[in-house]
Amino acid sequence: MSDKETLTLFDTTLRDGAQTHGLNFSLEEKIAVVDILEELGVDYIEGGYPGANPTDTAFFQSPRTTRARFTAFGMTKRAGRSVSNDPGLAAILQSASDSVCFVAKAWDYHVRLALGISLEENLDGIAESVGAALAAGKEALVDCEHFFDGYAADPDFALSCVETAYRAGARWVVLCDTNGGTMPETIETVVRTVCERVPGSHIGIHAHDDTGHAVANSLAAVRAGARQIQGTLNGIGERCGNANLITLIPTLKLKAPYRDMFEVGVTDDALADITVLSRRFDELLNRAPDVHAPYVGAAAFTTKAGIHASAIMKEPETYEHIPPEVVGNRRRVLVSDQAGKSNLLSELARFGIQVDSKDPRLDRLLSDIKEREAEGYAYEAADASFELMARRVLGTVPTFFDVQSFRVMVERRHNAIGDLVTVSEAVVKIDVGGKTVMSVAEGNGPVNALDNALRKDLGPYQDAIADLELLDFKVRILNGSTAATTRVLIESGDSAGHRWFTIGVSPNIVDASFQALTDSITYRLMKQGVTDHGLQVAAE
Amino acid sequence: MSDKETLTLFDTTLRDGAQTHGLNFSLEEKIAVVDILEELGVDYIEGGYPGANPTDTAFFQSPRTTRARFTAFGMTKRAGRSVSNDPGLAAILQSASDSVCFVAKAWDYHVRLALGISLEENLDGIAESVGAALAAGKEALVDCEHFFDGYAADPDFALSCVETAYRAGARWVVLCDTNGGTMPETIETVVRTVCERVPGSHIGIHAHDDTGHAVANSLAAVRAGARQIQGTLNGIGERCGNANLITLIPTLKLKAPYRDMFEVGVTDDALADITVLSRRFDELLNRAPDVHAPYVGAAAFTTKAGIHASAIMKEPETYEHIPPEVVGNRRRVLVSDQAGKSNLLSELARFGIQVDSKDPRLDRLLSDIKEREAEGYAYEAADASFELMARRVLGTVPTFFDVQSFRVMVERRHNAIGDLVTVSEAVVKIDVGGKTVMSVAEGNGPVNALDNALRKDLGPYQDAIADLELLDFKVRILNGSTAATTRVLIESGDSAGHRWFTIGVSPNIVDASFQALTDSITYRLMKQGVTDHGLQVAAE
Repeated sequence: MSDKETLTLFDTTLRDGAQTHGLNFSLEEKIAVVDILEELGVDYIEGGYPGANPTDTAFFQSPRTTRARFTAFGMTKRAGRSVSNDPGLAAILQSASDSVCFVAKAWDYHVRLALGISLEENLDGIAESVGAALAAGKEALVDCEHFFDGYAADPDFALSCVETAYRAGARWVVLCDTNGGTMPETIETVVRTVCERVPGSHIGIHAHDDTGHAVANSLAAVRAGARQIQGTLNGIGERCGNANLITLIPTLKLKAPYRDMFEVGVTDDALADITVLSRRFDELLNRAPDVHAPYVGAAAFTTKAGIHASAIMKEPETYEHIPPEVVGNRRRVLVSDQAGKSNLLSELARFGIQVDSKDPRLDRLLSDIKEREAEGYAYEAADASFELMARRVLGTVPTFFDVQSFRVMVERRHNAIGDLVTVSEAVVKIDVGGKTVMSVAEGNGPVNALDNALRKDLGPYQDAIADLELLDFKVRILNGSTAATTRVLIESGDSAGHRWFTIGVSPNIVDASFQALTDSITYRLMKQGVTDHGLQVAAE
Repeated sequence: MSDKETLTLFDTTLRDGAQTHGLNFSLEEKIAVVDILEELGVDYIEGGYPGANPTDTAFFQSPRTTRARFTAFGMTKRAGRSVSNDPGLAAILQSASDSVCFVAKAWDYHVRLALGISLEENLDGIAESVGAALAAGKEALVDCEHFFDGYAADPDFALSCVETAYRAGARWVVLCDTNGGTMPETIETVVRTVCERVPGSHIGIHAHDDTGHAVANSLAAVRAGARQIQGTLNGIGERCGNANLITLIPTLKLKAPYRDMFEVGVTDDALADITVLSRRFDELLNRAPDVHAPYVGAAAFTTKAGIHASAIMKEPETYEHIPPEVVGNRRRVLVSDQAGKSNLLSELARFGIQVDSKDPRLDRLLSDIKEREAEGYAYEAADASFELMARRVLGTVPTFFDVQSFRVMVERRHNAIGDLVTVSEAVVKIDVGGKTVMSVAEGNGPVNALDNALRKDLGPYQDAIADLELLDFKVRILNGSTAATTRVLIESGDSAGHRWFTIGVSPNIVDASFQALTDSITYRLMKQGVTDHGLQVAAE
């Protein structure tokens, strides 16, 4: 295919990644993760530890037809038992897997302390377990746990674990920096020594991020000869996490010297999906994606710098280390108080708003933005409010409704049966379609009550906001104390999956929330092409 | 002092860090960040870009007496203007700063494209700007922007930028990986070459995290001879962020070979506060700390029950790359409630509360804490509320006052002259010293009104809270949408400089605020040794 060497990617999201604090994969989630990994194109999927818990046991009960080698994790046989008389080992060997990855201790101190056996017994356990896996028709891998700490303490013993595993027929022997504290220069030196004893094409690296070096350590091992990298999706894992495959894969495919030296199983098409796959994984875990993640973060190609902005627009590629679309991400140049006119024009273009750069309204808009950002507005986080403000200055936003007044009351009192309860109620009075409408509603708190009242009766627009949903609500106090300015950010969505962000700023949290709520509704009506007479004029 | 070399730490949280997507420092926040940096012990604080925006300009108007060198950032003089006729340069030179850090282009392509000037003019601009800074009595630094991309394109020109800055008298010339795409091995090779031309004791590194290598790249430059590292608190910064000083500092102080080679300005005591300082910074930005952050993350020394748990309990240090307490963090093994109880006992001892480990009230307290933390309380951030809860379970907190009911109203309406105004009013009814008292007050918003009403008349306790002040108020929405749970954290203080933190959690933001407010007052009364009859029994 090419004269490049093959670099093998081993994913342990479902095994070591499952040690992440606060995370528990269900069986369905495990299956969904396998789908993501298959789309990505890793070579090994370590699915878990059959016998360790009911989910993992169930997961390995029926065979999976994966392109990747489906791998079961487990311990080497227990000392003092024969291979045929170790139920833990049997569970692994009988699991529906292509490969088996044994974990073996490679630090003399731990062999004696944690296992309480001799070094010789430990080596025998490795050799016999690998032999048993091969006899069961499975490929064998051995994770040498605490390898780098073990090497520092007793290099001969650590090396003999690796050699024993290799000679017994393990396809891969993986050097684990289990405690995560080893520096890249040490990793490189030690792996180089290992690769003088066992071919690097059989050596893997398993790094943790306790000093922020999991990615650098993985690449250091590859430079020293290792040809398998173990890691996880988005770098999840115990403590500070494992090596992040979502960061490593673009580097391996796009950066010298790796791109010229190695073939990896991830295609260019899969690379172009990596941003989506990374976010899909976060979605599955129900956590917010890391905005600043290398390559795939929402801000990874976002520039705020005023001093750079005009040059970036001229020749973006010289301000980007890779083209964002190669990893399925996109470029954003933000509006901020450091922004100039060229920045603003490109932002407007992104919203489909064409304005001549000499249009005087542009200056007014720019000074409005700066004034409002000085008050605490942050339009870079609120696209919809930004677009509304721009279109208002340009004169193209209809007045759908006009709020005459509102009143919100929160009352804490003893109810009829003597319990302390807190009740929130809101009343709004709006002019809509030539009529004045008053609505009242309760809610969990003042803002929720206000939201419920405001959306209760919008007259001719009621249908257009039927599927509008508030997805997130964030509050930030800008200058301390309860008398300070409050910034409210609201994320809204509709049934078609559109999402938009609006903002409000005021010393009064209810006022700030109200601004963001009305912006969200107005934005939705504008995008639906509703006119101010309530007629649907165009689908989006 | 020692025969170690000095490694200089340059913090750019307030300048490059301010480029972070979604972040806008206010003047007060900038001052609070300086406090954190001074406690940490960095050598340089880059405060911003005077002249670029009103906040930065104001920040540099009055001198700051920092231990660190207080540094203003700005561009070198514009081509075609003399040093004395460049208002941008003048703003920087006249700013209240010890040092000036000029940014200069070091990529021939950008000089021609973005600046549209000759390479010679660029070099002249560097030399003249440095000269002007020295003439103004300031130390000069030069950030060579796009240095590594520039070096790849035209090494001679890139090197001549560095040499020109150094010869003109710049104390530091900083090599910037502006686009963040350079790999550690390239950084190391290139910095080595630079250090053959200019002494490494004058060379700095400025790395970005676009490939997850900002920390590794900083250390690679140090290995090659650079002696200044630029970075930010918690690695904030444009796109994927800057080099994370909170990760780098423990590595430099604790890991070979750095700990044996270098002296850094951060003391061992400051290192033991680094976890607290990191979280205080996140608190300031009102963002959730990264649980998985190296060294300081809440999970950085947390092991999930599994194959390691029992061995970790036997000999924890062989499962940890450093002792957690050295960086002010703590070990957590999620195995049994036993671990929880000993933790709790040591927490109580910290507040001067001695309880027997067999006391059944301890089990109740532990289960209360677990239940409340599941609801969203975070006692780690609210010492005073934690102490109150503990003392309540142990039965030693008097009931100073009892709130019968409260009512808060927020109304938006047109006033007599037709302006839209929002008015907030609160009424509270409390039993205090055997009497029922009703108070009413207005405020900027519902919580401020409630605070004003609550503190208007506390009967016999009024004097004891006369100097109580609300210093900060933070709101976090725990599960999105306006119907979600709200967590309110309040920081209070008194005239003697004591500060304490209280917390409230409720679906209703007013309720949550009210809990935190009453906790703050109760805590203050308890600490003042006030009895529930209003008599002062002991000074604190």
